[in-house]
Parts: sequence; structure tokens; C-alpha cells
Amino acid sequence: MTVEPATLDRTDPEAAIAATVARVSNWGRWGEDDVKGTLNLITDEHRRAAAGLVRRGRSFSLAQQFSMDGPQKGWRRRTNPVHTMLDTGTDAEAGVQGFPHGLGGADDVVAMPLQCSTQWDGLGHIFDHGRTWNGRRAGEVVTSLGDSRTGIETVASDFTGRGVLLDVGRVLGDGFGELPDGFAITPEHLDATIAAQGDTSRVGTGDLLLVRTGQYGRTRREGWGEYAGGPAPGLSFTSAEWLHERDVAAVATDTWGFEVRPNEFDVAFQPLHQVVIPNMGLFVGEMWALEELADDCAADSRYDFLLVAAPLPVTGAVGAPLNPIAVK
Amino acid sequence: MTVEPATLDRTDPEAAIAATVARVSNWGRWGEDDVKGTLNLITDEHRRAAAGLVRRGRSFSLAQQFSMDGPQKGWRRRTNPVHTMLDTGTDAEAGVQGFPHGLGGADDVVAMPLQCSTQWDGLGHIFDHGRTWNGRRAGEVVTSLGDSRTGIETVASDFTGRGVLLDVGRVLGDGFGELPDGFAITPEHLDATIAAQGDTSRVGTGDLLLVRTGQYGRTRREGWGEYAGGPAPGLSFTSAEWLHERDVAAVATDTWGFEVRPNEFDVAFQPLHQVVIPNMGLFVGEMWALEELADDCAADSRYDFLLVAAPLPVTGAVGAPLNPIAVK
Amino acid sequence: MTVEPATLDRTDPEAAIAATVARVSNWGRWGEDDVKGTLNLITDEHRRAAAGLVRRGRSFSLAQQFSMDGPQKGWRRRTNPVHTMLDTGTDAEAGVQGFPHGLGGADDVVAMPLQCSTQWDGLGHIFDHGRTWNGRRAGEVVTSLGDSRTGIETVASDFTGRGVLLDVGRVLGDGFGELPDGFAITPEHLDATIAAQGDTSRVGTGDLLLVRTGQYGRTRREGWGEYAGGPAPGLSFTSAEWLHERDVAAVATDTWGFEVRPNEFDVAFQPLHQVVIPNMGLFVGEMWALEELADDCAADSRYDFLLVAAPLPVTGAVGAPLNPIAVK
Amino acid sequence: MTVEPATLDRTDPEAAIAATVARVSNWGRWGEDDVKGTLNLITDEHRRAAAGLVRRGRSFSLAQQFSMDGPQKGWRRRTNPVHTMLDTGTDAEAGVQGFPHGLGGADDVVAMPLQCSTQWDGLGHIFDHGRTWNGRRAGEVVTSLGDSRTGIETVASDFTGRGVLLDVGRVLGDGFGELPDGFAITPEHLDATIAAQGDTSRVGTGDLLLVRTGQYGRTRREGWGEYAGGPAPGLSFTSAEWLHERDVAAVATDTWGFEVRPNEFDVAFQPLHQVVIPNMGLFVGEMWALEELADDCAADSRYDFLLVAAPLPVTGAVGAPLNPIAVK
Repeated sequence: MTVEPATLDRTDPEAAIAATVARVSNWGRWGEDDVKGTLNLITDEHRRAAAGLVRRGRSFSLAQQFSMDGPQKGWRRRTNPVHTMLDTGTDAEAGVQGFPHGLGGADDVVAMPLQCSTQWDGLGHIFDHGRTWNGRRAGEVVTSLGDSRTGIETVASDFTGRGVLLDVGRVLGDGFGELPDGFAITPEHLDATIAAQGDTSRVGTGDLLLVRTGQYGRTRREGWGEYAGGPAPGLSFTSAEWLHERDVAAVATDTWGFEVRPNEFDVAFQPLHQVVIPNMGLFVGEMWALEELADDCAADSRYDFLLVAAPLPVTGAVGAPLNPIAVK
Repeated sequence: MTVEPATLDRTDPEAAIAATVARVSNWGRWGEDDVKGTLNLITDEHRRAAAGLVRRGRSFSLAQQFSMDGPQKGWRRRTNPVHTMLDTGTDAEAGVQGFPHGLGGADDVVAMPLQCSTQWDGLGHIFDHGRTWNGRRAGEVVTSLGDSRTGIETVASDFTGRGVLLDVGRVLGDGFGELPDGFAITPEHLDATIAAQGDTSRVGTGDLLLVRTGQYGRTRREGWGEYAGGPAPGLSFTSAEWLHERDVAAVATDTWGFEVRPNEFDVAFQPLHQVVIPNMGLFVGEMWALEELADDCAADSRYDFLLVAAPLPVTGAVGAPLNPIAVK
Repeated sequence: MTVEPATLDRTDPEAAIAATVARVSNWGRWGEDDVKGTLNLITDEHRRAAAGLVRRGRSFSLAQQFSMDGPQKGWRRRTNPVHTMLDTGTDAEAGVQGFPHGLGGADDVVAMPLQCSTQWDGLGHIFDHGRTWNGRRAGEVVTSLGDSRTGIETVASDFTGRGVLLDVGRVLGDGFGELPDGFAITPEHLDATIAAQGDTSRVGTGDLLLVRTGQYGRTRREGWGEYAGGPAPGLSFTSAEWLHERDVAAVATDTWGFEVRPNEFDVAFQPLHQVVIPNMGLFVGEMWALEELADDCAADSRYDFLLVAAPLPVTGAVGAPLNPIAVK
Repeated sequence: MTVEPATLDRTDPEAAIAATVARVSNWGRWGEDDVKGTLNLITDEHRRAAAGLVRRGRSFSLAQQFSMDGPQKGWRRRTNPVHTMLDTGTDAEAGVQGFPHGLGGADDVVAMPLQCSTQWDGLGHIFDHGRTWNGRRAGEVVTSLGDSRTGIETVASDFTGRGVLLDVGRVLGDGFGELPDGFAITPEHLDATIAAQGDTSRVGTGDLLLVRTGQYGRTRREGWGEYAGGPAPGLSFTSAEWLHERDVAAVATDTWGFEVRPNEFDVAFQPLHQVVIPNMGLFVGEMWALEELADDCAADSRYDFLLVAAPLPVTGAVGAPLNPIAVK
């Protein structure tokens, strides 16, 4: 069911990017000073309604692991988290801690890239021709001190709303419910998935869209392999307009890089990022663990839920780790 | 309104701790293999009901900042977060990134103690006479490799439920709604606050209890001072039984250390921790930002809400940073 | 014995800097592609002669401590080193390591600014009007990837030669042999020290010059105080030409910042750095521990020695920690 | 020229280790409180004589790189160094730094295991049946706070002396002067190398012995491969007594792990470490870059030199990175 997208001119990536940007840009839509981008699309009323989706009260963590056993291999100095202890139970047993009355303690430290595991890309993560969200100069916004305008702390409370899962892997994938690497998910695939899943899967204004490819589940069986940066299923470049038309507030996948890899142009690097982050102001989630939630959605045929996906608000961060919680 | 707690023998801290432990221990209550402690008290039904508390759909982040401007001064090697960039906008403008078609990017790294800012204490954080939660040997559970039994990842999905705010600062404090440093919040103070706040403040089984002292708000006006480890208002040692009787699932405050400081014994270090974490299996939150939520609760006289307080699930962590989200 | 330097126009710092630069610049002196700056001045013959200065074979470490007890307070995100363990002896005793035949082990990690303790400033550390050493554009040389031209690894083997100590504190200071904070060491002071110390103190081409103020010794008695960035004795802005005329290969002091603080202009930040690093290509050492060596030099009246001051060659680093070794 | 060592009983590693320990232990040799181990064997007279070996004044750095391109793959959480910038030249060009008069600056941070690249193993790195150097309890010496007795800072000034290179790779290896992986260097091989190299290669009391296998040179042609922990040439378990008889002060190789890998017992982990570090008090260097020095030694047939191998004195460290300098 591969569909060759009509709008994709593979011979001129830069022009294709520019043409798409012209159609989907949100610059200025929420004012000159805006830092929230598509998160503006979630209203309190959306949130109130999303809370109403909770039927059973089951809580799902959509976070992958944060440990040295993660998938990172050093690309652009991204390591896996290094978690070390400042105090331990073995120290306490050895009697070296010096606390009174039998008290003992353990404490710990982590050093990690903010995008090493389950994460949001912030609006300062990607630039288009030197411009970041809303047309600002990249060099004015993101310096060595971090993102001084759209740091993730500016949206610390905003990722609460209606989540909707499009389980493209289950609808269009193989016997494991997984898409093959290199599978580009087009608007047609998204629409087909909604049609197959039924009414709870409609996608509209202010929704937090989760797209499951199944690749993460495959890594659980087969090991990480090239999960971090290698071939992967993911959204097609042609999905930008679909996302824009539906006015989703954010979109996340179970893959390293959200969009299909290899990318759909011969020479390119994450062109869909280049369109949606700086131009649409769209927040992109990556490396989410969707397997358990997807099984539950398949079991009860309900694909929407309350989603609270709060980024760790590191001041000035261009990306943020998180532990997203879906409540059904 | 200082109340001298009846049960507190200040002359023999170790005996006082042991006596309280004897009354509140939950060891074995949820089986030999339990790793969730008091989080067992939250049921799906509690979560379903908590979602029903959402009236307006307003979302509050209860996280303090994660930055070098935080309160840490190096105690036990706790620094503030060091956030550095792997790529920047100034680099992109300088043309040194090497991406095609006008793409540029920024990426970042953090090194930080897991308890440097808004956090949950995990069950492996504190030991009582060499024992951790459920009676396990501290040296078997928490080694240099981290907490192999009760690492925070084991409860990644569990901190979702009914939150209830007891704004003791506003009820019993000064003109700013703030308790003075050294103020020990006793059961009587908690009950008085509930009485003053009204019915939405009742505290019962499986609730996620937030206690506001106002100290954090004071730091916003006056600077951090000795916030990290210095004198502070906080829960009295005598509140252990109150917490146990109400079977709360977790408790968090707006202070560095949850319990009053200086501690209530002449020689002691965090004796309430020693009782509640290893013996009750109670999760303790510290350094939460409760000001905005408290203002809202005061305004609408509703003190309960849906709380999703998902820890960053660093594998084996004994503490975890988070961005708690309250939805009203 | 304060001497008002003749050449210092305090009313126009930028002009004073430019005028000094015009007199001392070494741009082009060692070719277009040079990355070694004044280290070019040390020849093998200098090194051979320096080895000949070894009389007794005593080895001195000139490193301050690298620990959380250091002087850093967070200025520009400079923390003290955070040293944590990956494995410990308490773990080994607890029997959790899993090695055969009675083997146990410990391993460790550090996170630290490269200029948190005893260090060399690399040539990429300071820029003058956007230019780094030899006239290169700062933005081409030092990006988020580090210093791609003059990273400290390019001079990993070069800091070996004749060291000479000018103990200005002992010659011109108080009863402890220490200069007061704010004391600007001028050429006259340097010459007076040489005269007082005698012939082994002559300073010439290719020498590694150490200047002791005594401030570090004072911190050993009185605590760090404002050692990291506060008031300090140090080289006067007017010493640039003296250093240039003598063609020293490098210069190091026992202070945080090498030059006198407060700086000698009303509004300025480290103007001597701005002259000597990017324009002269001079390597500057800071936070060296000179007390023990100085005592020994005073005792035997010999102020020159073999100095091996090898930076930790972190690829692309603009500064480097080290453990300098003097052999007398 | 493989020699089956006479003393190696492969059927009982623990007994073989114990028997060797009985012959080579130095416990008590330098007093109860000793922290320097074999470094006690270097006298000032040795150092004076070593300085006399300098003929030409050429300085060699024996450090490998410290960068993300290193060999570490995550074994026991050992990563390669993560070097990030606090300030950059691109920032300076963008005008965001805020310094006056045209000053700009760059600053940097590193997070790294202390044994990720060129290093000394400290005396707290390895234990034998729960005992560290001089018979101390491992759990008393090395806690989460680091090594409180034999931290590397205690020998900060001691690694200065006569270096001698045994280029076993060149004498006994293949056409590239490299030994194959798994090649165990026995006393016979060491003696044969000394015989081949001539009188400047004699090894005696207080010498800093460098053994070149050539494996590092092979990685320069072929990539790191399994350099960090995989098969490698290295010292045979049977060399312990040879090292003890000659009373060397320290020994370093160009391999990850100093001793041959796979180890010479079917089930074992670094048994030579277990003998020499805690029992002899011998300092072991690993991952040294010996290629350039070896070429020079071969060229002038002089294999001894002044060696200054000063560890970065991280307080309490059980291992330490360094930039060793040989001067010929």
C-alpha cells in the first residue's frame, strides 16, 4: 500500500521545502511575541473535554528507558544517560555515612543529552535558513546559553489535552503490527488508519497526535540496532499539510526521528522537521513507548484519552525528556 | 498556634523513631516483592474519580526551575543543573553545521543531581538501620549501579490521581501566607487547615497530598538564601501517624526537605524521612512550586484536582526530577 | 611601592587596548597556519638546557585540588568538579560486583569545567573584536564543536621547558609574603623581583614564567572567599609589553584570573587577556599552587627549574586542566 | 616464540593468584600508613639521573585523544568524553556575550570517566578478596565519596623519573611491529626485548616501564574495533614476579587493559591487576600512545628518557587521566 505522494518533487529538495513552508507557515498567527506555537491550539475547554475521556482510570507511561542500555551511539555527541550514585546502600551498610540514629541514604546524578530518550523537540531545536519559530534569527535565540526565547520552560504547563493514537503499524503493518524501515506514512495512510480505527480516532484542532509505527516494539524483540538515526518508518514529508490542516497541537512517534528515514529526497536531512518546527511552530515528540497503550486501545477500540506530557523544564532547553502519561 | 506534640520524646530520638515506626510500618502489607509502597493505594477508580475533578481544564505546572540559578550550594555534591549546548543558532548562522538545504539545528545536554529541583524521593533514597522499603538490605538494593529493586522506573505510571492541597501557609501563616522557618506542621495544623479550607480538602486513601508552607514563595521575593538545607517550615515528626492513618499515596511540599528544619530532635537528620520512606513506603516530593496553584485554589475555594506527577524514569534512580501537572 | 604605569590611559580602555595590541601583536610571526603561538619560542635546545637545571631531583606538583571543595560558585556555569563512582569498595564488600576469584574494583567519572582549577587558557579562550589568534574569525574557529584550529590538543607536547618563578608576593608583599587584593604587578615590580631574587630569575625567550602573588596561600589559611572572580592581585595591564619584549612562552599565576582585579579600567573585563591571548598568542595559566615550590626556591635561592606542564589534551578544548610538575 | 609460562596452573585461577600474591606482596614494606606503593621506589637521585638522560630536548606527548571519537562503547558505563562549550566564537560574533571593548570568550566543560583514555590506575582501583593496597578493607577505603586513603591526589608529584620503553611489538611482532591480539608477554619476552634493544633498556628499581605492543598503532590504521575490552596483546600473568623482582615504580602499555586478553585462565577477569595493584601497590598505566616515542627510540637506539607522567589530581579518584611527557 505504498502511495507515491503527488506533491513531492524529489529533484529539488530546497524548492520542495520552500513550497511546503509557504502553505503551512504559522508565523505571526499568534502574534509577534509568541513562544507557544501550535500549543496555542489547546484551550482549557479542550482539556476539560479530554479529562472526560477517562473511563477506567488506567494510567500508562509512554516513556522509554533512561539508562546506559539505550540506543544512542554517539551521533553528534549524543550518549545514553550516565547515572551515577552520590551515596549508596553499600556505603550505608559499611557505616561510612555519618548520619545519626540509624539513618542512611542514597542520592544520585545523571548526565545526559536532553534528546537521548523519550522527548519533545522544542521550538529552538530546528532552524530554516537561519530562522527559528516566528521568523526570529537563530543566532539571537539559541546561543551557548540556551534558547533565550522559546526554551522549553515557557511551555511547561501546556502539554495537557486530548491524545489520539493512530496505530498505523497495526492497521497497515506486518504480522507484528509493525511498518518496515523506510515506510513513509502519507496523508492517505493516516486517513486509512482513522477510517480503520473508527470515530475515537478523529484528529482535530488542539489534539496531541501519537503515531505508532511499531519500530520501537521491534527493538524490544530484536535489540536497538540502528534505532538512533538509522532507517525507520515515519511520517512522510507530504504529511506536513495534513498536520497543518488538522491543526494538531503536537505530534509524537515511537521512532528516533519522527519522519521516515532515509528521508524522501536523495540529499536531505530531516526536511519535515525543517518545515514543521520553525515554520509551523509544531512540537514534535520522539522515542515514545507506545506498545502498551496501543494494545489497550486495540483491545477496547478507543483511541483517544487524556494525555499529560509534561517536559522536564530545563531552562533554555531546545529539547526535553519526559515521562508522558496517558489516562484512559 | 504552636502545638507541642504529645508523642515526641526529644531526649531519645532513636527510641522515638523506633516507636513511631512500630506504629506506621507497612512492611509486608503488599507482599514480599512489593516495589510500589503507598502507591498501591491509588486504584484505577481513584484515577477515574480524579479525572472527574476537572472543571475548567486549566493546567498548572508545579515545577520549579531547572537551571544554574537554582538553590543548590554543593551539599553532598548536589549542584544546580549544568545545561550546555551541543549545537546552537549562532553556529547555524556562522554556517558551520553542514546540513543541506538551509537546515540548522540546536541540541543540548544536562548534568544534574536527580534531587536538585522539583523531585520525588524514591523508596531507595532513605534507609532505617540498614533496611530499605519492605525490610530489604540497603546494600543489596542500592549499589553503585543504582537501585536494583525500587528504582523510580518501577513506578513510572503510578503518580496519577487525586491531588489535594493543604495550604497551611495561607491558613496559619503571616500576611504573605507563609509559615516562618522552623515551623513544625503537626496533625493539629493539618486538621485545622482542612477545616478552614472546606470539604474539597478532605484527605483520604490514595490521595496525593500537597502541603504548601509558602517558603518557596518567599524565595521568589527574597532570593534562595538557605533554601537548600537551611531552616524551613515543614511537616513535624509527629505527622507520621496522621499520614499513615489517612493512607495517602504520596506527599509533597514546597520546601527543600519536606520536614521541618531544624529537625525536632537536638541531634537528628531528617527523622521523618527515616520513618516514612523505608518503613511506610511513602513517596515524598520536595521543591514543588505551589504558588500559582494555591492562588487558584484560594480563588475558587476548590482544593482538589487531577494530579499527574510523572517522574523522569531514570533506570535505578533513587530520586527523580519531574514536572508535576495539576488540572482543575 | 605602588607604581602608576605611564602608559595606561584609564579614560579610554578600548583605545588603550588597541594601542597595546599594536605594539605586541605576533600575528603572522610564525606563519599563517600557526597554532602554537608563543610556544614556538621554546626550542629543543631550551628544553635540553632546562633539564640541566635539575640538581636534586625533587618533583613538585603545582596543581590545586580538583574537588567539590574548590572555589567555583557558578559564574558562567563554572562549577567545581563533580566526581562520582561507577563502582566502589563498599559494593565489592557487599558482594554485588560479580567478578570471579575474589577480584573487586572501583571506577569513577568526573564532570567539570575545563577551567575550574589549575589550567592553561588555550588560544581559543579569548577573542579581540571577533578575532582569535593569528587574526582568524572567532566564529570559524570556536563553535559548539569546540576549537577546530587551536584546540589544546595541538600543543599537547609543547609545555616543557625552563620554568622561572618570580615570587612577587615574597619580595613585595606583607609578612605572609602575600600581595593585597587589587595589587597590580607592573614591569617595575617584575624587574624589582628579579633583582631581589638574583641571577636564576632572569626571564628570557621561551621561558615558562610563574608569578606568585601569594593569594592562593591566603585562601589556604582563610578559606576561598571570592577567589573565583573577586578582587585579587595580578599582572597589570601594563605588563603586556614587558612579557612581549622578553618573549616568554607562557605565563601562569596562583590567582583565578592572572591579571589584577578589579581591572585597571573603570569599565573593563580582563583587558590583559584580550591583549595577550588572541594578539600575542600567549598561553596563560591560572589557579596554580605555587606555595611549596616558592618555599623551596626561597630556601635554596634558585628560582629556575625544569617545568613540565602538560595539559589534558581534550580535543578542541579552549582551556585545559593540568598537573604541572616542576623538577629542581 | 610463544613460551608457556612454567608457573601458571590454568586449572585453579584462585590458587594461582594466591600463590603469586604470596611471592610478590609488598604489604607493610613501606609502613602501615603508606599510600604510595611502588612509587616509594623512585628517589630524588633517580629523578636527578633521569633528567640527565635528556640529550636533545625533544618532548613527546604519550596521550591518546580525549574526545567522543574514542574507543569506549559503554562497558560499565564508560563513555567517551563529552566536551561541550559554555561560550563560543559563534556567540561572540553574534554579539550576545555582553563583554565590553570588543572582548569575547569561549569556555568549556567535560564529562568523562577517569579511565576513558590515557590513564593511571590508582591503588584504589582493584581489590583482592575485599582488600585494597596494604591490606586495608575495600569498603573502608573506597566509598561513593571516592578513595579516602589512596586517592590519586596523594601521588600527584610522584610520577617523575626514568622511563624505559620495551618495544616488544617491534622486537617480536609482525611487519608493522605489532603483536597479535591474545599474545601474552612473558618474562622471557621482556628479557628478549631488553637484549635486542641494548643497554639503555635495562629495567631496575624505580623505573617507569612502558611496554609497547603495537595494538594502538593498529587502531590508527584500522579503527578502534574492540580496543576497549576486546582481545589484545598484553602482559602475561606470569610477568608479576618479573615486575616485582625488578622493583619498577610503575608500568604502562598502549592497550586498554595492560594484561593479555583474553586472560590466561578460562574463567578470570584481569587476574594480573588483582595481583599487582592491591598486593604489590603497583601503578598501572593504560591506553598510552607510544608510537611516536617508539619510532624515535628505534631511530636513535636509546630507550630510556625522562618521563613526567603527572595524573590529573582529582581528589579521591581511583584512576586518573593524564598527558604523559617523555623528554629525550
